Amino acid sequence: MRNAWRVSADSEQFYEIAVAEPLLGDGNDALVRHGWTPGRRFVILDSGLPGEWRDRFAAYFAKRGVEATFMVVAGGERCKTMETATAILQELQQFGLDRRNEPIIVVGGGAVLDVAGFAASVYRRGVPFIRVPTTLLAYVDASVGIKTGINFSAGKNLVGSFYAPELVLLDRTFLESLPPREIASGLGEVLKLALGCDPELFELLDAYADQQWDAGFRGELGMRILDRSITVMLEQLQNNIYERDLCRAVDLGHTFSQAFEIHSAEEVRHGEAVALDLNLSAIIAAGRGLLSEDDVRRLTDLTARLGLPTEVPHLDPERVWQSLVERTQHRGGRHRTPIPCQIGKCVFLDDLTRDEVLSAFTALRDTHFRKPTPLTSEAS
Amino acid sequence: MRNAWRVSADSEQFYEIAVAEPLLGDGNDALVRHGWTPGRRFVILDSGLPGEWRDRFAAYFAKRGVEATFMVVAGGERCKTMETATAILQELQQFGLDRRNEPIIVVGGGAVLDVAGFAASVYRRGVPFIRVPTTLLAYVDASVGIKTGINFSAGKNLVGSFYAPELVLLDRTFLESLPPREIASGLGEVLKLALGCDPELFELLDAYADQQWDAGFRGELGMRILDRSITVMLEQLQNNIYERDLCRAVDLGHTFSQAFEIHSAEEVRHGEAVALDLNLSAIIAAGRGLLSEDDVRRLTDLTARLGLPTEVPHLDPERVWQSLVERTQHRGGRHRTPIPCQIGKCVFLDDLTRDEVLSAFTALRDTHFRKPTPLTSEAS
Repeated sequence: MRNAWRVSADSEQFYEIAVAEPLLGDGNDALVRHGWTPGRRFVILDSGLPGEWRDRFAAYFAKRGVEATFMVVAGGERCKTMETATAILQELQQFGLDRRNEPIIVVGGGAVLDVAGFAASVYRRGVPFIRVPTTLLAYVDASVGIKTGINFSAGKNLVGSFYAPELVLLDRTFLESLPPREIASGLGEVLKLALGCDPELFELLDAYADQQWDAGFRGELGMRILDRSITVMLEQLQNNIYERDLCRAVDLGHTFSQAFEIHSAEEVRHGEAVALDLNLSAIIAAGRGLLSEDDVRRLTDLTARLGLPTEVPHLDPERVWQSLVERTQHRGGRHRTPIPCQIGKCVFLDDLTRDEVLSAFTALRDTHFRKPTPLTSEAS
Repeated sequence: MRNAWRVSADSEQFYEIAVAEPLLGDGNDALVRHGWTPGRRFVILDSGLPGEWRDRFAAYFAKRGVEATFMVVAGGERCKTMETATAILQELQQFGLDRRNEPIIVVGGGAVLDVAGFAASVYRRGVPFIRVPTTLLAYVDASVGIKTGINFSAGKNLVGSFYAPELVLLDRTFLESLPPREIASGLGEVLKLALGCDPELFELLDAYADQQWDAGFRGELGMRILDRSITVMLEQLQNNIYERDLCRAVDLGHTFSQAFEIHSAEEVRHGEAVALDLNLSAIIAAGRGLLSEDDVRRLTDLTARLGLPTEVPHLDPERVWQSLVERTQHRGGRHRTPIPCQIGKCVFLDDLTRDEVLSAFTALRDTHFRKPTPLTSEAS
């Protein structure tokens, strides 16, 4: 008779992220290649997608003999609720989705990808889904990893799962029609990757900010930024995709950002909140002598040139500190706050104090972005 | 520039199932050994647990300097809802659970383990939890694998996850006070394992049914049944714990059981529904010449001697067929119905017909359990 059993629950899986342009092009079957062909598909569309896209998708499926059922989900952070997830689950059940052979196709921004991915991860304990990102933020960030999530009880992504998509299909065509603020928000995540992990990406962003903006990322520089962002993100995720190690450089910009994103009087987009966090973190780093004033200035300057916020929204400073307290629960009881120590590198601090954070916040709000570039910098 | 990235999302994890009797004994710290010590713990208790247990748990934690917060969840199948899961998530959030170092302790029957496991699997994308089964069904079945689940839109376990516990702690003391019907329900799952996977377990059950029942499984035979059940279950799960292969012998008894469990006029417990399914499956098998009449009779006989149902509850026979249709969606578009082909072995059929199932159901309802043992069998 045994007194104990040791059980292995290893799982082996992989997924592919592939550029498939133009996604709805005549010879392009990437979207329906997985699962039963022709068969049926359940397709979730972000309401933010221009109306004609739905017709294009309908025509695409019809042409391939695929019976498509569409569900439109109101895009943006507000859709990341248990209610939306439940509504998707109801629709999947009504559709009678097969557990393996009818991958859900999700076309949208990061929020829709997150909530639909969560629903896919729990329906029948997980059904396959395919992500098609339609915003820059989704393209370089939400699409790349295996996180899904919804907000719950005022906590961002407090409920969710690690659940790999079957496939991620990329098409820059979706980016072409995005408003500048949406592009800037996406660039906030790219800036995070650049500052925390990759000096080369920082240089690329620096050059991109100087040129006539290429919102469709069709030019050489735009393509290189997208490519490098995904590659750097995957390098960071690859050996830690389930976050066994809670010290994660890609968490840079995500310690105080929740306060800006959730508790500001003004609407602050995710990438904008990240950019504000990056600048706050840089002030903290400089205060500790970890980051040079010159690097701080380069960051501030690039933030502005990328169209990211140079004014701090109205919010109770205490929220900024509480955001770190909440993240500490999420990071296994220690701060593990990534703080930049040079362009492309960060360290993890466990000993930030409330005074330190609040005084850095005051500096961010009152002087950081307003400080004129010192004359001395011209001399160098 | 790259056009595609292949990403590995492998995960390595294991968990332990351990007999830890008596769980609340003086020198036994198994329950608090994982996570921060002494620290705090969030403890979910099944309302079906006799009231004095809560006091015993409270005393156990107090003695070890652990600050325990209890949440009582109404046990039984009806607790497996999104509402219960959400209520647990709210409590976890109010508790301020650390992501890694405060494993949730769940003490209860299969339904409570399922819904609490689901909540643990999605809170902060998964926090550790420890299972303590208090019913026989939970001991030999719900505790062993990595499935969590809730019912949704009339579908059993339609929403859930594959999520390994940190640890499973077994103590037969909980089984001692169970009513006979609860024990019988648990034996329904053991009977399934025996019929589908293990002739030795069938013999053990056969012998157990003959003796004075040992509800606490303290005797040699009781212990061997528990031990063998877990071992056989793990053998079946070990190389297929995420159900990549949808032909699963442990699914025997779980094709038609949903109809009995959900749609009967009378209350039918899970293990009882499984036993009815086993007998229905045996009739189908005999009808195809896959199972001998002698083996069918051994099953019918043992079903009765274990205190499992020998009368079919009132339900629309169409529900029985629809249950298979629903399972087909769950089994990737093919029936993959496990059907016994001898004691301890099953085959998978893809071609059951509605007529075949309905006529087997009629036989189960009208003649199967009432058939007197033929005189000829005495001669053999």
